[in-house]
Amino acid sequence: MPLIDEFLQANREYASRFQKGNLPMPPARKVAVLACMDARLDPARILGLEEGDAHVIRNAGGRAADAVRSLVISEQLLGTNTIVIVHHTDCGMLTFTDDSLREKVKKELSTDADHIAFLAFQDLEQSVRDDIAFLRSSPLIPQNIDIRGLIFDVKTGKLHAVA
Amino acid sequence: MPLIDEFLQANREYASRFQKGNLPMPPARKVAVLACMDARLDPARILGLEEGDAHVIRNAGGRAADAVRSLVISEQLLGTNTIVIVHHTDCGMLTFTDDSLREKVKKELSTDADHIAFLAFQDLEQSVRDDIAFLRSSPLIPQNIDIRGLIFDVKTGKLHAVA
Repeated sequence: MPLIDEFLQANREYASRFQKGNLPMPPARKVAVLACMDARLDPARILGLEEGDAHVIRNAGGRAADAVRSLVISEQLLGTNTIVIVHHTDCGMLTFTDDSLREKVKKELSTDADHIAFLAFQDLEQSVRDDIAFLRSSPLIPQNIDIRGLIFDVKTGKLHAVA
Repeated sequence: MPLIDEFLQANREYASRFQKGNLPMPPARKVAVLACMDARLDPARILGLEEGDAHVIRNAGGRAADAVRSLVISEQLLGTNTIVIVHHTDCGMLTFTDDSLREKVKKELSTDADHIAFLAFQDLEQSVRDDIAFLRSSPLIPQNIDIRGLIFDVKTGKLHAVA
């Protein structure tokens, strides 16, 4: 079965049990989770989120520099007051450098990615601290926003707090 | 209980049942889902995704222009060959304009957001078609990548295909 049909079939099951049609737009728990896109990390399952609870922003690495637009919308228009950053062990971002990926793009796609900061990193805990510091120093993120950092272990399913 | 402690408590329950510690890094279903950060939309639940299945990229609106970095990493380094865009009804992105949010930022934060394209939209189905067209025309997204677009109805839990 084509992937899109598998998705639509799974959705028919979801919709047949759906009872959450009256949730408001602003997140009930006033939090924006910023997590890596990694397939092994499901923010809702690992944090115990239900529909309606939290904004969930995800990108390669869960990097803050790539999330400012969404965070401003979350905070200024929809009332969130906490950011929880979730990076994880065995992250793909630890396996390359921005230069090596630019080289690969040039070779595979015959185009230039020199204008893209891919935001790879070498140290997992430092990447969380760097992202907290990045947001803390941004004039677009108010000082009264609480910012926390967690690391998810893909081998054990456990989270631990970095900050 | 502080939010972060609620998350860590929920995670202890998740970790106690965790049996997926040997999943590989590349997504099993070779797909990158690009969805809105909205709290009412849980991509894993609405599409039937298990841990390990798919990259999930999320931002305000599920906008493609804000996802290129992550999509290049997903495709070039981790082998995904399909992008599924998921926007949804009652989206916050339909409720403001880039200019009105810039005005609000200036007033609330005493800083300038003129350099940020907030990517608000006025027409939901068109926003999906626009994002597909944006990716289709990007030299960084190969032509053999399948790109599909879905809309999630927050009132019914149902998805329908736009493209």
